[in-house]
Amino acid sequence: MAVYTEVNDDDLARFIDGYGVGRLLSYKGIAEGVENTNYLVHCERGTFILTLYEKRVDPDDLPFFLGLMDHLAAAGVTCPLPVRDREGHHLNELSGRHAALVTFLDGVWPRKPKVEHCRELGAALAAMHLAADGFRLKRANALGVSGWRPLFAKFADRADDILPGLQTLITRELDDLEQHWPRDLPQGVIHADLFPDNVFFIGEKLSGLIDFYFACNDQLAYDIAVCLNAWCFSSDFSYDAAKGRAIIEAYDAVRPLTDGERAALPMLARGAATRFLLTRGYDWLHTPANALVARKDPFDYVRRLRFHQSATSIATYLGAERA
Amino acid sequence: MAVYTEVNDDDLARFIDGYGVGRLLSYKGIAEGVENTNYLVHCERGTFILTLYEKRVDPDDLPFFLGLMDHLAAAGVTCPLPVRDREGHHLNELSGRHAALVTFLDGVWPRKPKVEHCRELGAALAAMHLAADGFRLKRANALGVSGWRPLFAKFADRADDILPGLQTLITRELDDLEQHWPRDLPQGVIHADLFPDNVFFIGEKLSGLIDFYFACNDQLAYDIAVCLNAWCFSSDFSYDAAKGRAIIEAYDAVRPLTDGERAALPMLARGAATRFLLTRGYDWLHTPANALVARKDPFDYVRRLRFHQSATSIATYLGAERA
Repeated sequence: MAVYTEVNDDDLARFIDGYGVGRLLSYKGIAEGVENTNYLVHCERGTFILTLYEKRVDPDDLPFFLGLMDHLAAAGVTCPLPVRDREGHHLNELSGRHAALVTFLDGVWPRKPKVEHCRELGAALAAMHLAADGFRLKRANALGVSGWRPLFAKFADRADDILPGLQTLITRELDDLEQHWPRDLPQGVIHADLFPDNVFFIGEKLSGLIDFYFACNDQLAYDIAVCLNAWCFSSDFSYDAAKGRAIIEAYDAVRPLTDGERAALPMLARGAATRFLLTRGYDWLHTPANALVARKDPFDYVRRLRFHQSATSIATYLGAERA
Repeated sequence: MAVYTEVNDDDLARFIDGYGVGRLLSYKGIAEGVENTNYLVHCERGTFILTLYEKRVDPDDLPFFLGLMDHLAAAGVTCPLPVRDREGHHLNELSGRHAALVTFLDGVWPRKPKVEHCRELGAALAAMHLAADGFRLKRANALGVSGWRPLFAKFADRADDILPGLQTLITRELDDLEQHWPRDLPQGVIHADLFPDNVFFIGEKLSGLIDFYFACNDQLAYDIAVCLNAWCFSSDFSYDAAKGRAIIEAYDAVRPLTDGERAALPMLARGAATRFLLTRGYDWLHTPANALVARKDPFDYVRRLRFHQSATSIATYLGAERA
């Protein structure tokens, strides 16, 4: 929620000149994203988002992220298209940072997602999974199952400062996840962070997917599990089965789920809740209370995790347990 | 440099619907302005700045500010034009704040102003003064000469915490200013805060003036004095006479300065330096070091004030003392 790197007007005008998008007409630092600096840039030939990659992003990952957006856009996914400079490069430098220019997408992310938003989301997620097929670069999921225990080791001894009993809860959950985690589901490129603020709508129609900076290769159905966590819980922590069913059914209509994926959904949902619980827990203990970036409460994910632990099958997520 | 008030997408869509500018297509919180919350809003019929007025702004002043922009735009000044809703109102409410929608202006503010920028500025300032003639609302300058001593009284006893000797320096300066302040110069509406970040350029051509939230009725030449302080000092605190001359001569070519205004310029420049020294000094002592808003160093204005105290006449500002 902050501009981290200030950009000089002369430097930016020179940078923009390298892209053949006409003269720089305006730029505004925008309060979006917590990892990088973003400017909304208006040039004679269009409106763009300029991203300066801050130090939490590994520069070696940038060709994967930008190449993926390029690949997806070419395959018909409405996502930001990285603009190539006159020499054909996506990636440049500005103000001491790696920097890229991508096309601006119209749309508003839903602060209170409705069932109809979830239906659009499910269909778009499946379409993205299909469109990513054939993308040749690979990136491991640093925040996948094998990364959770090392991440927890960094703050396990202080976990009970967040919530009494949290250390035991997570330790037992990691034991279970490592033992029962599915390993043979269909693989591909996943978004891995498809929260409502990364999905734009105009009215109730999905207009674009953004922020591919956690994208990686993993089991496709894990992305559905992330969405169930990110879209289907109310502010009172209750699960909204109408939203979950909308995501799953709309996904399934575009890319039919295998029996293995259906069976694995509760475990994948537990894994996704654990992943966000771990990063939020770590950030909670490592972000000063007065920092520019708002801390996200890890407790939300304790509640979600407990719900998933109680789920018996995909029927729980479809709201069809008695059917 | 921050978004203070978060706006809900549904509330904003309803708000926008009241203006007849088409559907809401996107909105981004922008990191501009330190007093209010600003969003860049894209609708089917144009791009706008949405401002939510935070508590430092007196609601009773809003009709003056919005009416002035309306008046100036109608008189040919390139400034944001407040959009009227379907019922003819400029001012509405959103998320518990007074809110207005104004047209978006292209342009980039110069981080390192050049002489050519200053020439454009001087001409635009004079044109604005002429264009404001006939605007019927009035607003006293709360940060004019009569407001300086009461403001200083709020932190005089701690002034030496900022810089040893500052209390004496300001006290003596206020004595001088109150005794010698010109009172009979041409009056009108002044911008009163025309720093580089409030003046947009495309290339070296001025494309607009923004941020009229300090505008008020006062002596017109005081605006020139503000600009000399805001535009003509280098980062090493030295005065750049080529820039000062550019402002003064370009202004004079559009609205010729009276002999009284010319003679008063050093005293007006001291007053302007004192005004910014006072608000920065106050904010320095009252803003936590870790606040969202960057504190501006009051020391810059001690250096400027000392320069103005040494100025003998307008010739100092024109770089023509020996001519």
